[in-house]
Amino acid sequence: MTMTFEHVTLGQRVLFGSGAAAANLAGEVRRRGAGRVMVIATPSARPLAERVCRDVDVALWWDEVVQHVPVPLAEAARTAAAAHGVDLLVCVGGGSAVGLAKAVALTSGIPVVAVPTTYAGSEATNVWGMTEGRTKTTGVDDRVLPETVVYDATLTTSLPVEFSVVSGLNAVAHCVDSLWAPRTDPVNRLMALEGARVLAAALPRIAAGPGAVAAREQALYGCYLAAVAFASAGSGLHHTICHVLGGAFDLPHAPTHAVVLPHVLALNAPAVPERAARLADALGRPAGPGQDPAAAAVAALHGLCRDLGAPARLADLGFGADDVAEAVRRVRAAAPPSNPVPVTEAAVTALLTGALTGAVPGPR
Amino acid sequence: MTMTFEHVTLGQRVLFGSGAAAANLAGEVRRRGAGRVMVIATPSARPLAERVCRDVDVALWWDEVVQHVPVPLAEAARTAAAAHGVDLLVCVGGGSAVGLAKAVALTSGIPVVAVPTTYAGSEATNVWGMTEGRTKTTGVDDRVLPETVVYDATLTTSLPVEFSVVSGLNAVAHCVDSLWAPRTDPVNRLMALEGARVLAAALPRIAAGPGAVAAREQALYGCYLAAVAFASAGSGLHHTICHVLGGAFDLPHAPTHAVVLPHVLALNAPAVPERAARLADALGRPAGPGQDPAAAAVAALHGLCRDLGAPARLADLGFGADDVAEAVRRVRAAAPPSNPVPVTEAAVTALLTGALTGAVPGPR
Repeated sequence: MTMTFEHVTLGQRVLFGSGAAAANLAGEVRRRGAGRVMVIATPSARPLAERVCRDVDVALWWDEVVQHVPVPLAEAARTAAAAHGVDLLVCVGGGSAVGLAKAVALTSGIPVVAVPTTYAGSEATNVWGMTEGRTKTTGVDDRVLPETVVYDATLTTSLPVEFSVVSGLNAVAHCVDSLWAPRTDPVNRLMALEGARVLAAALPRIAAGPGAVAAREQALYGCYLAAVAFASAGSGLHHTICHVLGGAFDLPHAPTHAVVLPHVLALNAPAVPERAARLADALGRPAGPGQDPAAAAVAALHGLCRDLGAPARLADLGFGADDVAEAVRRVRAAAPPSNPVPVTEAAVTALLTGALTGAVPGPR
Repeated sequence: MTMTFEHVTLGQRVLFGSGAAAANLAGEVRRRGAGRVMVIATPSARPLAERVCRDVDVALWWDEVVQHVPVPLAEAARTAAAAHGVDLLVCVGGGSAVGLAKAVALTSGIPVVAVPTTYAGSEATNVWGMTEGRTKTTGVDDRVLPETVVYDATLTTSLPVEFSVVSGLNAVAHCVDSLWAPRTDPVNRLMALEGARVLAAALPRIAAGPGAVAAREQALYGCYLAAVAFASAGSGLHHTICHVLGGAFDLPHAPTHAVVLPHVLALNAPAVPERAARLADALGRPAGPGQDPAAAAVAALHGLCRDLGAPARLADLGFGADDVAEAVRRVRAAAPPSNPVPVTEAAVTALLTGALTGAVPGPR
């Protein structure tokens, strides 16, 4: 079997240290010689952002942050950045704060330093998104990739367990979907499998004791690996399905991921048995002697989700049996042609029906 | 135990495919819109370089390539590049061809596309080196990092077995030294351990049948991972020792690495038992139940070198018992302060004496 791939590594600096965000951020601002810093953080994240920025001269605080980055908001933030002569954007928060910083960087080229406080992973990708009316536009541009990321697990210890679990499983989905995404390659699979390994070990510890900094560190590190893998491999069938369920049926992002992922794995794993075996091993539940590696991987992922008390039925999230046919049509229209298993009507119908009712997933 | 690290990822595009170098290179030249390509390749590599460049308009062929890049040669190549309005440097060959391309890029900013034909790994680093008289100067600059690397295992099938083995073990040394180098971190250790895993599987297959493209592919991929890890982690004690032995005692580069590496591992492994256990596993000889992980790692590496018929005694490479004391002084003066074990006179003396005589290495 020969090896053929194109792999693009995105250049980025990561400063990782618990309790070190303020010192690492101040050092980074100094190193860059930045003199006009704009800090993006929601009002609720403001106290935390002030602690993180305590040794930085802030030229502009920006606290309006809206999910999916409406274009008028992006325009307002860009205008403010220009008016204040901003030379560095610092975002402290989750995906929406990073998203707004990216929108400003996209047109201005001002570099971004991201200080994530959730497991969204947007800080490690060159993908931006904005909404105009009800239409979301996304794109890829290296200018929006944060040049530096400051990770500090102490900023995440107050995330509630339930949110941590679904958000962490969203990161696991980045890893799993990377195993067959359009640009999957040996390098991004290496990052994806290590991300899955780290997250599978950390998330149960967070569920048991959400304040444990060591487990939070591992989760944050796992999310970073997951995001790097996902940015490199691209969006696979799992993300197509979740995008359809979120966009056309308004299902909530993170819980939908947790429900759907084991069912997508059940569909695809038999076509990539070597990767499935490595995933089962990474999830800490390797295939037993003679066990089918696909079945082992699905059982391992299903077991992790179950142990974490993750949602297991789309029916609980607002999806109904009447919705299946339309969802199947939309998924088939948008599915990546490179999926290792044909995305037939029968296959997607079975997948969504299983996810709807909370059937135990298994390779077909 | 908390996790604290700074990790810098270098942005780079890798095009990997056996038999695809010419197509991948032509595609890359088109993608960049380069119109004035300078190709650097030695006279002996010229036929191969012409095949690789068959679909590229070459503005300038440059065939003078000298090990360690003498400054006058770099100046001459820079002058020629400027005179020909070169907008893309393509190097086809080993470390010396890449080195000259880097020297031109360093002052001109002209981007480099590297097409490696050996396992040197320089194509994946931002390190440059030049010599003036007998003094070698090295430095780090992102401008010299090749923006794209085209890997094609069919370009390496004619490398002789003996050279492949020591050159491959040199790549293994990049992996092993990364486990404790000054900037070692979880991300570069992940790459290093996977590089070691891939190389340990591939090198014996190359020794058995040097024309096997599949094994050559794996070796090339392993060397890429090794170089990425090494560029990120920096140079550790092993490379300090080899630099002293090469520079002050004129020992040959690649064989020296093969001899010294198991002895450095024997010194350091007991201080990093978890990494040693993962290395033993990566080398395909995991620690048995109750076995000391450091001993297992050393035995695994020693076994690999022995199975490959690698040189095992510095005495065979021109180093003598009389040289030990001076070498110890020089190594201690240059050793990284971050080495996990104190670099005492006794430790280095024992290490070099063991390497001199070909003693079986073992943790002390």
